[in-house]
Amino acid sequence: MIGRKDVEAAWSLIRPHVRRTPVIELPGGSLGHRQPMALKLESLQVSGTFKGRGAFHKLLASTVPPAGVIAASGGNHGVAVAYAARALGHKAEIFVPTISSPAKVARLKSYGAVVHQVGAVYAEARAASDKRAAETGALVVQAYEDPVVFAGAGSVALEFAEQATFDTLLVAVGGGGLIAGCAAAIGQGIRIVAVETEGTPTLHEALKAGHPVDVKISGIAADALGASRIGTPNFEVAQNLVAESVLVTDEAVRKAQRALWEELHVVAEPSGAAGVAALMTGAYRRAAGERVATLICGANTELASIA
Amino acid sequence: MIGRKDVEAAWSLIRPHVRRTPVIELPGGSLGHRQPMALKLESLQVSGTFKGRGAFHKLLASTVPPAGVIAASGGNHGVAVAYAARALGHKAEIFVPTISSPAKVARLKSYGAVVHQVGAVYAEARAASDKRAAETGALVVQAYEDPVVFAGAGSVALEFAEQATFDTLLVAVGGGGLIAGCAAAIGQGIRIVAVETEGTPTLHEALKAGHPVDVKISGIAADALGASRIGTPNFEVAQNLVAESVLVTDEAVRKAQRALWEELHVVAEPSGAAGVAALMTGAYRRAAGERVATLICGANTELASIA
Ligand SMILES: Cc1ncc(COP(=O)(O)O)c(C=O)c1O
Ligand SMILES: Cc1ncc(COP(=O)(O)O)c(C=O)c1O
Repeated sequence: MIGRKDVEAAWSLIRPHVRRTPVIELPGGSLGHRQPMALKLESLQVSGTFKGRGAFHKLLASTVPPAGVIAASGGNHGVAVAYAARALGHKAEIFVPTISSPAKVARLKSYGAVVHQVGAVYAEARAASDKRAAETGALVVQAYEDPVVFAGAGSVALEFAEQATFDTLLVAVGGGGLIAGCAAAIGQGIRIVAVETEGTPTLHEALKAGHPVDVKISGIAADALGASRIGTPNFEVAQNLVAESVLVTDEAVRKAQRALWEELHVVAEPSGAAGVAALMTGAYRRAAGERVATLICGANTELASIA
Repeated sequence: MIGRKDVEAAWSLIRPHVRRTPVIELPGGSLGHRQPMALKLESLQVSGTFKGRGAFHKLLASTVPPAGVIAASGGNHGVAVAYAARALGHKAEIFVPTISSPAKVARLKSYGAVVHQVGAVYAEARAASDKRAAETGALVVQAYEDPVVFAGAGSVALEFAEQATFDTLLVAVGGGGLIAGCAAAIGQGIRIVAVETEGTPTLHEALKAGHPVDVKISGIAADALGASRIGTPNFEVAQNLVAESVLVTDEAVRKAQRALWEELHVVAEPSGAAGVAALMTGAYRRAAGERVATLICGANTELASIA
């Protein structure tokens, strides 16, 4: 199991390539929530999500063959891999399921990647990408279950802890890369709380079962949180270091997106607003005086979807 | 002429009511510009622009009569006055010209203000508001030419200078409140550069003439930068402390808005993107090694206008 030292090492490797994203501390009464909260606008990261951190770490920590890199992704991981590959001078092929948003596909292409739209769900896109990688010899960059990738993602938590003081960090979970990285980074001292939508409860169901289980994916956050099963190393970290797991409805996520725009002029995609939704609805109940923080982890969405 | 001490005093008065807005430092190569730049996301301020700072200062520094406050505004100043009035428990009446965007009018109403849409241009709305104030005895909160208001606005520059190190600050100019406040705050040590669109060159023309002159207003930024003449105390500060004045086209502003969204996931209204436009186009040419910063000073726009 990786720990804080691994995340620190990843951070120092990727630091020249990623942004130090800004933090805003809101007083009580903001975003329909009585208490203060700290938000890290990781949606301003290169590639539009925290996934840029993991992608850069994988590419920098590996020997990339002439065939370049290959990834399967509901969208944001692919965008991050395409971005990092271009920045570091490698070829990239990205496999995405057909449900991926047009905004994400357009972004992939703008970064010079070859895009393959294959399969209705992530698992099918992934099978196709594995087959292709076996043929070309390209480096596979997994979306969440590779500790090298999630050590990179965890740097967001180290950075956040430098910028603000908090007792608890709410983290959106899909395949579990972000939360595993954050928990490895700061989970010894900080309460890590998992947030998922009711349509994407991979960690929630795994914690109930005591092991990763397949989950039927649906709803507003499916394109980013739509892994159908939590990763194995991710679950190991989560079981050890995640304090609590909460679910939010699609409607709560939509309300959080709208409040973020109207009150703060921050654009978030559904997964990026999940933590705020958990606070606004009370799905996460904090103790008196508990200082809470969450990540706005992505904004790769069409503006019209929020307006 | 007000100076740094006045801005410091204003800042300590308003601090409990306004947000410390985040800053992001971009490396060279970002936003189509070769050199690094620091951006302060003042678009995340309460009320959506820096105008919140000035409005709170005026209301906190004055005795507000039972009739409340009154303001004339192309939009953002009115939104700020309505916001501050509600927060402090005062009535507000806001006069806006009919060109004001529906988004701004809706926001005014959501803050509980009584909104009057009067006149094609700001000057007419202002005349109507002065008449009404004479009748009701409400406190007039002027948009830019009151040193109490612009001392509040200037706090954004003190805060920015705490958060990042820069030699030069690019500031969008309408009636000149923002730039007068920023220049009073930090203009002794930092180069202050004025940015206006070609359709709203109030300071540019005043500097040429040696005194404030009337300007015909047009174009993309007219609703926020559309004062038809620079304020008198504003011009006095600007003449002393503004190093340079540059103009950008509407097309450059549109490109800057799009780049801010696509590369950074930051939403800016046209005036809010003017500083970035001046850097992207080279309208402002920096010296070698000069560290440049600008404010994203507003985001009260419809998302669809950027998408
Ligand atoms: C914006 C955003 N938030 C959260 C997640 C969840 O991350 P993970 O799959 O590592 O749990 C993703 C995954 O793509 C994402 O794109
Ligand atoms: C977003 C924004 N930027 C800049 C300005 C210009 O400010 P000033 O009129 O104080 O020069 C305004 C004025 O309303 C504004 O709303």
